[in-house]
Amino acid sequence: MSEPLRLGIAGLGTVGAGVVKIVQQKAELLEARSGRRIVISAVSARNRDKDRGVSLADYAWEDDPVALAKRDDVDVLVELMGGSDGPAKAATEAALRAGKDVVTANKALLAHHGQALAELAESTGAVLRFEAAVAGGIPVIKALTEGLSANRITRVMGVMNGTCNYILTRMETGGLSYQEAFAEADGLGYLEADPELDVGGIDAGHKLSLLSSIAYGTQVAFDEVELEGIGRVSIEDIRQAADMGYRIKLLGVCRMTERGLEQSMAPSLVPASSPLGQLEGGTNMVVIEGDEVGQIVLRGAGAGEGPTASAVMGDVMDVARGTRLSTFGAPASSLIKPVATKATTPAPYYLRMALADRPGALAKVAAALGEAGVSINRLRQYGQSPTADTAPVLIVTHKTTRDALDSALAAMADTGVVHGTPVALRIEAV
Amino acid sequence: MSEPLRLGIAGLGTVGAGVVKIVQQKAELLEARSGRRIVISAVSARNRDKDRGVSLADYAWEDDPVALAKRDDVDVLVELMGGSDGPAKAATEAALRAGKDVVTANKALLAHHGQALAELAESTGAVLRFEAAVAGGIPVIKALTEGLSANRITRVMGVMNGTCNYILTRMETGGLSYQEAFAEADGLGYLEADPELDVGGIDAGHKLSLLSSIAYGTQVAFDEVELEGIGRVSIEDIRQAADMGYRIKLLGVCRMTERGLEQSMAPSLVPASSPLGQLEGGTNMVVIEGDEVGQIVLRGAGAGEGPTASAVMGDVMDVARGTRLSTFGAPASSLIKPVATKATTPAPYYLRMALADRPGALAKVAAALGEAGVSINRLRQYGQSPTADTAPVLIVTHKTTRDALDSALAAMADTGVVHGTPVALRIEAV
Repeated sequence: MSEPLRLGIAGLGTVGAGVVKIVQQKAELLEARSGRRIVISAVSARNRDKDRGVSLADYAWEDDPVALAKRDDVDVLVELMGGSDGPAKAATEAALRAGKDVVTANKALLAHHGQALAELAESTGAVLRFEAAVAGGIPVIKALTEGLSANRITRVMGVMNGTCNYILTRMETGGLSYQEAFAEADGLGYLEADPELDVGGIDAGHKLSLLSSIAYGTQVAFDEVELEGIGRVSIEDIRQAADMGYRIKLLGVCRMTERGLEQSMAPSLVPASSPLGQLEGGTNMVVIEGDEVGQIVLRGAGAGEGPTASAVMGDVMDVARGTRLSTFGAPASSLIKPVATKATTPAPYYLRMALADRPGALAKVAAALGEAGVSINRLRQYGQSPTADTAPVLIVTHKTTRDALDSALAAMADTGVVHGTPVALRIEAV
Repeated sequence: MSEPLRLGIAGLGTVGAGVVKIVQQKAELLEARSGRRIVISAVSARNRDKDRGVSLADYAWEDDPVALAKRDDVDVLVELMGGSDGPAKAATEAALRAGKDVVTANKALLAHHGQALAELAESTGAVLRFEAAVAGGIPVIKALTEGLSANRITRVMGVMNGTCNYILTRMETGGLSYQEAFAEADGLGYLEADPELDVGGIDAGHKLSLLSSIAYGTQVAFDEVELEGIGRVSIEDIRQAADMGYRIKLLGVCRMTERGLEQSMAPSLVPASSPLGQLEGGTNMVVIEGDEVGQIVLRGAGAGEGPTASAVMGDVMDVARGTRLSTFGAPASSLIKPVATKATTPAPYYLRMALADRPGALAKVAAALGEAGVSINRLRQYGQSPTADTAPVLIVTHKTTRDALDSALAAMADTGVVHGTPVALRIEAV
């Protein structure tokens, strides 16, 4: 193949500029490895005049990313605008409709419209790749879709939002409250414009839903991900967890059970000595478990110009080399709509609650748990809180289902001795 | 693509049987994911009558793997016999010559004949894949060749021999001598027929040479790997290293320097808190560092039926999906013969020696180091050994080159106060 592969880059933020730099500075390397010259024909962004530290003089400019996608001199649309709808979706659809390949870093777009876009790509013979959308520079989409494709996947777990991991790590290492650690992350520019995307687990949930689809041959079902953010995790929880040999991570878990597809993204306890437990700061980790391969752990930078551009260009190199894969690893038409189920796989849970400091209160909580079939493994009650008329109680249950636990929590609420809503965190065996 | 992909499997040991099982038991899954049926046409092994726990009744039998490779009903030769020459080489060559793709788990074959085989594959348009040859089930060849292909690779490190890691881990956790841990591994069947392949670092060196080739666009140069086995590592070294916050691993490192390609496979000290330092038992780990992506860590089972068969089948799935890659990630004709260099990148070293217990001995050692330009960071001298007329001395140097260190070691030998050859282990920053 001697024809150059011509890119149209839509979106020239940090990652877009990083991609332009790689194409400019590594032309020879990319050609040596792919057998094909990779060039940029045209670019598009909101602001033409911004200084991005790279020369765009050699490229055509399009104000409209859809016009970019349709250009005759563009073979591959590189979509780096972000956003689940609007221009990103319109440009991606325009490119795929024209039979052009698309490489994107846009997890929201894929999480919300993955199935429709995969079907569209398939109908025109185009390829839609999104390595950069999940876990930054870690080639996890490739590992799961290709390298491990002879495995029945038994579980995928991931810490895939560096900002949340940063906040939780800082709470532990710096003894900061959630609010303080949040403010610190904000000051460092780590948070999305809408912080709920990060701390609410939405961004990480998007990523998990894409991994689920590949792992289980199901249509992307982001709406079925059980989402819980890190906002209710307290320094007390982190200390108690550490005391018992655990760390708290915003952990995504998906597994296929007899009842259906479980997908959850929630703060969870993992053993401090496990690879997931040892992860600190902004680094990401994905753990893939397959029936043949056992456990594979992948770790690396989850964000940033270089790592994300590396992933984008990995996909571009695949296209240049002629690799043609289905978006989610199997034909879009074959992907089934998953039956979603709440986490039905039993696990131990960590509970923290504020208990009225009066006789019989603890007995009522214990009875509520017992009646729901939840048995207690460890329990600690502390002296009355200096600032309130309650005493903190910590409970670690034996393995139980989320349903049983929820019944117990509802029954506890009815006793009137539990103030507010207890914190309930799953303890995931890893 | 609706034509089935027809495999000929040469070698029916543990991995071969594992591959047969996957093809038999997961036919539907493999077809759903690859868009193509994967079938076995014929098999070959030394002993036809052995019970392998799988039915071979549906497959043609060939006593001669070369005949298997040439069969009209074989599209892909799956070479699982092992050995750098003999039948494995002959069958691989026969298949490639006939334009058939080859998937192999054979690191020795690739380490010794990789360049010639890659050229042969290229000349007939065949594909030669070898994911299973390096780090078992970890899709590291794929990550390096494809996912990270837009990176200039700055360093690749790996713990890729589970047996050595098992022995070193048991020495540390069980307080065993090298001989005792070796005997234990042997009893568990962990050692190759020729144990030197494992404990001499040869097997791991084969793997490192393959990673180097992909990382740096160079011809495989196994003969240039600086090899050192683990046989001289003592329990004392392990304890001292632990005391200083390190663990000893049989660590492969390759990097391209201004002077040339460094490849070393030797027992080395790594920080105990690093992912490499925390690796225990038979698990493998590969760390890839690229200029864009930063550090990527991949961890998983390095051997065994399931993991290795998973990697073999990952390659088969690639072939079924129509992925066509150069053997080492770039056209064979473009791979340059590397200028090999000894580890010239400065590093601190750990030294242990038996010093004559007489006045001035330590001064002579210190002088030998100083004259070679090697400065001492830490030094410990212990009381005279109860069983010999010598005292153990431990030295950690500041960063120095291996050349300077070797000069110092030669000068020390000339002093006559050092008994035997000092143990010298590199401390790798990870």
